[in-house]
Amino acid sequence: MIIVMRQGASKEELTEVKKRIKELGYKPHVIHGETRNVIGAVGDERGKSILQSLESMPGVENVVPILKPYKLASKEVKPEQTVIEIVPGLSIGSDALVVMAGPCSVESEDQIIETALAVKSAGATVLRGGAFKPRTSPYSFQGMEEEGLKLLAQAREASGLPIVTEVVNPRDVELVARYADIMQVGARNVQNFALLKMLGQLGKPVLLKRGMATTIQEFLMSAEYVLSEGNRRVILCERGIRTFETATRNTLDISAIPVLREQTHLPIIIDPSHATGHASLVPSMCFASVAAGCDGLMVEVHPHPETAASDGPQSLRPEEFASMMSKLREFAAVAGRTL
Amino acid sequence: MIIVMRQGASKEELTEVKKRIKELGYKPHVIHGETRNVIGAVGDERGKSILQSLESMPGVENVVPILKPYKLASKEVKPEQTVIEIVPGLSIGSDALVVMAGPCSVESEDQIIETALAVKSAGATVLRGGAFKPRTSPYSFQGMEEEGLKLLAQAREASGLPIVTEVVNPRDVELVARYADIMQVGARNVQNFALLKMLGQLGKPVLLKRGMATTIQEFLMSAEYVLSEGNRRVILCERGIRTFETATRNTLDISAIPVLREQTHLPIIIDPSHATGHASLVPSMCFASVAAGCDGLMVEVHPHPETAASDGPQSLRPEEFASMMSKLREFAAVAGRTL
Amino acid sequence: MIIVMRQGASKEELTEVKKRIKELGYKPHVIHGETRNVIGAVGDERGKSILQSLESMPGVENVVPILKPYKLASKEVKPEQTVIEIVPGLSIGSDALVVMAGPCSVESEDQIIETALAVKSAGATVLRGGAFKPRTSPYSFQGMEEEGLKLLAQAREASGLPIVTEVVNPRDVELVARYADIMQVGARNVQNFALLKMLGQLGKPVLLKRGMATTIQEFLMSAEYVLSEGNRRVILCERGIRTFETATRNTLDISAIPVLREQTHLPIIIDPSHATGHASLVPSMCFASVAAGCDGLMVEVHPHPETAASDGPQSLRPEEFASMMSKLREFAAVAGRTL
Amino acid sequence: MIIVMRQGASKEELTEVKKRIKELGYKPHVIHGETRNVIGAVGDERGKSILQSLESMPGVENVVPILKPYKLASKEVKPEQTVIEIVPGLSIGSDALVVMAGPCSVESEDQIIETALAVKSAGATVLRGGAFKPRTSPYSFQGMEEEGLKLLAQAREASGLPIVTEVVNPRDVELVARYADIMQVGARNVQNFALLKMLGQLGKPVLLKRGMATTIQEFLMSAEYVLSEGNRRVILCERGIRTFETATRNTLDISAIPVLREQTHLPIIIDPSHATGHASLVPSMCFASVAAGCDGLMVEVHPHPETAASDGPQSLRPEEFASMMSKLREFAAVAGRTL
Repeated sequence: MIIVMRQGASKEELTEVKKRIKELGYKPHVIHGETRNVIGAVGDERGKSILQSLESMPGVENVVPILKPYKLASKEVKPEQTVIEIVPGLSIGSDALVVMAGPCSVESEDQIIETALAVKSAGATVLRGGAFKPRTSPYSFQGMEEEGLKLLAQAREASGLPIVTEVVNPRDVELVARYADIMQVGARNVQNFALLKMLGQLGKPVLLKRGMATTIQEFLMSAEYVLSEGNRRVILCERGIRTFETATRNTLDISAIPVLREQTHLPIIIDPSHATGHASLVPSMCFASVAAGCDGLMVEVHPHPETAASDGPQSLRPEEFASMMSKLREFAAVAGRTL
Repeated sequence: MIIVMRQGASKEELTEVKKRIKELGYKPHVIHGETRNVIGAVGDERGKSILQSLESMPGVENVVPILKPYKLASKEVKPEQTVIEIVPGLSIGSDALVVMAGPCSVESEDQIIETALAVKSAGATVLRGGAFKPRTSPYSFQGMEEEGLKLLAQAREASGLPIVTEVVNPRDVELVARYADIMQVGARNVQNFALLKMLGQLGKPVLLKRGMATTIQEFLMSAEYVLSEGNRRVILCERGIRTFETATRNTLDISAIPVLREQTHLPIIIDPSHATGHASLVPSMCFASVAAGCDGLMVEVHPHPETAASDGPQSLRPEEFASMMSKLREFAAVAGRTL
Repeated sequence: MIIVMRQGASKEELTEVKKRIKELGYKPHVIHGETRNVIGAVGDERGKSILQSLESMPGVENVVPILKPYKLASKEVKPEQTVIEIVPGLSIGSDALVVMAGPCSVESEDQIIETALAVKSAGATVLRGGAFKPRTSPYSFQGMEEEGLKLLAQAREASGLPIVTEVVNPRDVELVARYADIMQVGARNVQNFALLKMLGQLGKPVLLKRGMATTIQEFLMSAEYVLSEGNRRVILCERGIRTFETATRNTLDISAIPVLREQTHLPIIIDPSHATGHASLVPSMCFASVAAGCDGLMVEVHPHPETAASDGPQSLRPEEFASMMSKLREFAAVAGRTL
Repeated sequence: MIIVMRQGASKEELTEVKKRIKELGYKPHVIHGETRNVIGAVGDERGKSILQSLESMPGVENVVPILKPYKLASKEVKPEQTVIEIVPGLSIGSDALVVMAGPCSVESEDQIIETALAVKSAGATVLRGGAFKPRTSPYSFQGMEEEGLKLLAQAREASGLPIVTEVVNPRDVELVARYADIMQVGARNVQNFALLKMLGQLGKPVLLKRGMATTIQEFLMSAEYVLSEGNRRVILCERGIRTFETATRNTLDISAIPVLREQTHLPIIIDPSHATGHASLVPSMCFASVAAGCDGLMVEVHPHPETAASDGPQSLRPEEFASMMSKLREFAAVAGRTL
């Protein structure tokens, strides 16, 4: 932590700040500058909110953190890449790309089984499908809930694909965990810390989506909530951030892939469907993501997008998905990945 | 809903879209344009996600919603301003401004009671204080939880001020409701729909903070979640949105006051402390908010900001708060408000 | 400037960085931390781009600037508030608020003279009007150019109000300066450095609008371009920044007023018309801005907004402007300002 | 254009709006809805600012544009992809990817010639280098100006590579055109319409960078300025947009590639150097951009980034560039491109 003193701050003010730094268990180290002094507070600043309060002391201009605030998620603590076993025989974080595909919402037995078989035959290795849907409007379809989870389990049976599905309420964690192979936390819940803590105590992989206004540092802090409770199987998912641009639903931040790769050992996947909001933009964003080095993708596929209960415009038809996968295989090979 | 057809869309495509609009219970109405056709779908589009899926039909360029998607929150349904009784003798939404003040976190009996008495004597009418704290870092102070709620109740006893405090987990709704006079939903939970639904079934006022990346329309949809469950006592709170600017913690969107005033009958308050992140910016933003027509303010006050467990830099000292309130009274009078 | 070394950077890397810091004319000062070292580079960093390049040296994690990069615009160099004489008898930056009002574009003699007389009688002290219009579309009305400047001069004659008008091309600086009392730089040209340098050599006040994506620090750097060429008469104008919110044309950053007040001695005005894009939102934003401590306002007024060649929806009618001004006077009095 | 009437707007108000629509040369077409009426204004709305002013009429809620406002840039007017000859034997927009590489600023004869030869041998086909530098700070290096242009010409001579360099002032267009093969407009000048118009009258290709806060629609409108003056050789360049994320200098919007591809026939290139701001992130973003379908890249390369006069941290060393190019070739082949 660097404490920047104001120009013209008095000696007494400097002394008081140094004293306070020591009280908090850090070692102050003053650098006398030409126009102002700065103080380095040496020590582990990662429980840093207290140090931030020094900003309220007379003579202090501002407080600049130096260390990243996360530990378990960082490559400094664990330099080697984390490989997470989803089910026996299927892992994420290794050379094998993991493609999760399926409808936004589970709507019926036919719909989910038809989709599961189709995406499997095109090369997907995980089935996605929402049973609990966080919808902006209380008047929109809210998901089939437990009935949807049961249909997902049937589709797993039929296709052999493990399933990833979202949990939105801490109350439902146990219920969802009875069915899901991967527990998904949606973008709106990325800072639902009560939910994250519960998932941290679970023995299942957690797929954590970045929020629409979540910085990469905050995203890793949310992962840290799960990790610090003991669950080390966290998959990070970039799904677009909110910007001024309206041509796409959100702006897919593909540069998050190399940035995260430098900071963390956790696997990284991309969801181009929610990011772009338009099916026609999805294939090229899948190619770009794999070229940029992601560990997997999450793609919405629906047999009849024009009648989908949610997110129709961004869903690929099964044949479009198959065609995308076929091209993706070539890009994956260049990226040193198997598919 | 307006469906815009592509340039060169075929007659058959137009016919199919019209057919589908009818199937969904709307009346299609075609306008033949010079370069393309558009179709108005007449009917109540507020359960609109289905219509959005028309975008996946051949020949459709895009789908443009016309109606606002909320009902109960809108002035069209209820033109007169809502006045909410917080406790007997104290209401929000009328001419009397409501100022909620207190520390970010409850830290000790002394701290909360000292603050309660100080803000009361300066003219605050509600005491704020956090017992459950949603913190970005799992290593930061997470609040005193039930112990904090008990101290808040003591401070209410001592000062006579009703209390507003945050609830972050649906599981704690009942517990918090036993102590709080107003249930606060924080910015990070504005789309925690499970929490909103539970609060909608409660007989207590709900203070709903706008999220950092929540549009005004989405904000009103979140209010609609509470309203549609039966609880009509929702207070809206603007607290800054996330932008590229870093001189302030967030960017306070004061224009949200007149925008919301045109759209909704619900009371509107402003939290300049979280918005700006710096105590020195808070007084002028209080003045501006009242001049712009808000119904109340939420201001962080701490007896010793330099030792605060959280949010010290943005907390006013009691004497600074008193001085702000004294000037605020003059602005309130010009705005036609009492304080 | 603080240079943060990577965890595990070698002694040799540290030595190389220190050597390079000295070569660049700064004094290195190492703080040995628990997990990494940081180096303070003592010296005036304001020509700082060179130091930033240290980030490319082996072992360096990142480079954190400490000083603000502007000088002449800063309060550290000139603590007392700047008062700018616009014309004899009219200054900005003192207790007297300056209200600049008029149409977006000059359209005809009748229009500009009618508006000038109307805004003057309501209390405006400067007439605004665009002759050179930077329009997003090449097919939109581009302004009356010199003909418009002549009409502005006529309106000045008729009303006695000095005029502010925009210059968009360095080539036109001399031409516009022959007519204008204040030279306006629009939001799109805030980093048109060629234009800023020319205006810096002129003997006329410059009204500099903040760009839609300009941070406050960059805004002051743009002012520095004008100041460093010798022209010390710069008026800063906040006019809304671009965010994700679409209910308003831009998001008016009223907190920029106190932030700028802490950083700079230059006068600050607010343009709520371009910020909000809707006439109905303008009056409350005028009140808020004055309550927050601005030195003046710029407001669009048009006698017939529904037929305006540009920006009709955000223009007040003369009677709406007069009514706003009458209320504004009361807020100004509380803010310690005359109007 | 769709005009949405307010709920409860009177018959007279509707009549007045219809009348005004006719006066403006459009045909009104009313759709009577359940809660409000909407009017389609049939006709070419692309000189649309006048229609927008209908929003000021009594009874009107808002005005929603339907058509895209650009013509010459659109695929509707010219469906086939534009191929631009840069110099005989080198075109952009065809299967052959164009890679433009070189330093941010021209600094010396040695530096620019060494870089030119290095990037050429790695496969670049255009040399970039700045002679006129738009810098945020007036105290930063502003470029070598004409001297820099001469050095670029020498480097062209030595390497055989055509050169792209930025022009920032309409006054310098002729001067820069004497040396440059491609005229670059920087992000800060994307709405410098005076400059765009001059370049529209020139017989040289124009490389137009998207601004930090420019929507894709506005970006195409800026291209339209050049096109409508007669110069049809415009190359679009995405270089990152400004968002809340600070881990990267800007956020590279790779989804702009397929979005632009659907809207326009103009070639599209990507600048990952300015977008990310960190050399380590550049290679993966080059791969992603080519996988997403861009027509070319612009990459900063400097022989000694740690001593660069500008943008050192984002510059690749020649050997890093060569290694990136070698991998890029494989991705290009999968994307159906030659390099």
